[in-house]
Amino acid sequence: MQNLETGKAWWEPYDQLMVATGAVPIRPDVSGVDAEGIYGADTIKTAINIIEILDRKQPERAVVVGGGYIGLEMAEALVLRGLKVSLVEQAGEVMNTLDADMGALVSAALEEAGVTLCRRESLQGFDVHNGHVKAVITDKSEILADLVILGMGVRPNSALAKQAGIPLGKKDAIKVNDRMQTDIANIWSAGDCVESFHLVSKKPFYVALGTVANKQGRIAGINIGGGNATFPGAVGTAISKICEVGVARTGLQAKEIENLGLSYVSSKIKSKTRAGYYPDAQDITVKVLAESGSGRLLGGQIVGKGGAAKRIDVLATALHAGFTVQEMIHLDLSYAPPFSPVWDPVLIAIRQVIKKI
Amino acid sequence: MQNLETGKAWWEPYDQLMVATGAVPIRPDVSGVDAEGIYGADTIKTAINIIEILDRKQPERAVVVGGGYIGLEMAEALVLRGLKVSLVEQAGEVMNTLDADMGALVSAALEEAGVTLCRRESLQGFDVHNGHVKAVITDKSEILADLVILGMGVRPNSALAKQAGIPLGKKDAIKVNDRMQTDIANIWSAGDCVESFHLVSKKPFYVALGTVANKQGRIAGINIGGGNATFPGAVGTAISKICEVGVARTGLQAKEIENLGLSYVSSKIKSKTRAGYYPDAQDITVKVLAESGSGRLLGGQIVGKGGAAKRIDVLATALHAGFTVQEMIHLDLSYAPPFSPVWDPVLIAIRQVIKKI
Repeated sequence: MQNLETGKAWWEPYDQLMVATGAVPIRPDVSGVDAEGIYGADTIKTAINIIEILDRKQPERAVVVGGGYIGLEMAEALVLRGLKVSLVEQAGEVMNTLDADMGALVSAALEEAGVTLCRRESLQGFDVHNGHVKAVITDKSEILADLVILGMGVRPNSALAKQAGIPLGKKDAIKVNDRMQTDIANIWSAGDCVESFHLVSKKPFYVALGTVANKQGRIAGINIGGGNATFPGAVGTAISKICEVGVARTGLQAKEIENLGLSYVSSKIKSKTRAGYYPDAQDITVKVLAESGSGRLLGGQIVGKGGAAKRIDVLATALHAGFTVQEMIHLDLSYAPPFSPVWDPVLIAIRQVIKKI
Repeated sequence: MQNLETGKAWWEPYDQLMVATGAVPIRPDVSGVDAEGIYGADTIKTAINIIEILDRKQPERAVVVGGGYIGLEMAEALVLRGLKVSLVEQAGEVMNTLDADMGALVSAALEEAGVTLCRRESLQGFDVHNGHVKAVITDKSEILADLVILGMGVRPNSALAKQAGIPLGKKDAIKVNDRMQTDIANIWSAGDCVESFHLVSKKPFYVALGTVANKQGRIAGINIGGGNATFPGAVGTAISKICEVGVARTGLQAKEIENLGLSYVSSKIKSKTRAGYYPDAQDITVKVLAESGSGRLLGGQIVGKGGAAKRIDVLATALHAGFTVQEMIHLDLSYAPPFSPVWDPVLIAIRQVIKKI
């Protein structure tokens, strides 16, 4: 144990030990990364620092590196504050936990919001002047920047566990069983530092999300307290909002399915969030992916305005049930004009994919 | 066959006959019901007539008889047009497809919208002056009315089928099998005129909703066309919006469970539609009902603003899966602050009901 304020270190005995060290943001090992004006999006303290800089220094140009949900949310926040914002993304489209065709809708929404997208560009370093960042250097361009936000994902904070000899798994996340026990007796772990089990791929995976962390923490607590509870795993559900556009995904995306060696069919449909004649009916695009032959639902993705993306929960629940798309066609989903067309967009996508099974 | 314009009648032979006669609004057999100024909410033509009367005669006082979703939607529309609106409901609360404790939230929303509620009052007749309605007479009061809307529900329009000897079931709806065949060879039926199968009670029931009618019509069409498809049934999902408040239900309500002789436990929780600190987080109340002992999910009800009610689809999908509430506690539902608290309100309700199983 160590008191981080006084530096005092000591040994503390335990009966049961809980490792809840979370995740750390990935900082790229490139020149100039430690310059002033470059921030991760990690702690509340960093966020307060960024807001203080925005107020005091009134930077004009911001560059966000990384097009995942943290990067996108930061880009949105900066655009809304009136900055000129560029976003650097290595892949062809932002939000690469979606398939590229769905990610393209998010890219378009970002551009509509006024963000300049630099796709297929990879960070090489930073141009620094007087200790302060001046530009972001990619393999293709140099982008002027008064402020840089790093949104390059996180990795499990498992160094301490590794030192202690606790076996690690996927992406160096701590291996745990479904009771949240590590491989070492009386040591437990949960949250962004552990490996999870994917209920669709039936394989371990790494996910750093509050929903999963919360559920795992509860299970670890019950078991440490002498109870007996298990966490079966997750289906990879995530949701985000970029300006007016909601983005959600669950299950496996195309490349994950391909990596498993499965073959799949998919449908992508455009519908409305409400009856077409009802005021404020918004566009919604739903994609579903199902296993060829069996029709087992494998995943889904939704992009749309007006709360549309929360419909992903129907697909997530169906993944937990292990439904085939054929079994889903008659799901008794709710309809009234202010809430949905008479066939919910999710069911329209299901009907389309069934034709291809 | 009969041409309703010319009155000409003739016999028409058929190979396959489809009976799609729908439902008819219930008109009470009371004095004065045929007076001018009393309208059902049945056809588009009636709606156009009502709007024309509103524009031309500028009625001041409207009374809506019936607190189901048609009655409530009409009450909302009339209040928004500036009329003084009273609503007569026989039961203790409006929306009696919800349990009374949830219906009370809808009653409160109506009153907040400016509707005068006359609960536990039953229609006796109408006071008519010069052929025009002047007041609605209940067992407890006389309510002045320039305009009356009847929203007393519908019954299957099965008189023709009955005459033809086609067997009827629940509420005189036409009996059909899961291919939408009646008991008479080569006669099919679907929609608001047929009996449906309830996947939770495992018994026939009558439901007049566009979602179910649409699905049944598709199945009948496939089968009449020589294909082979079945409609397994519905779980009783319905949704409505009254002013800013969404109302939804699925599965069985308390009195339906009691009528089946099952015992149940329930939880009712109040949460927010978004993270509490996020702008426009709205109240949402979720009630879930589960079978005592087994924990099988039996039903759910949601009342809340801001699209909250559409979350009912998670519970509907879970009912199709036959989930116990214990199986639902780890549903990987989506979370981000603009969409949900980290534990979705549906999961909070599930956690609470599990404690009572």
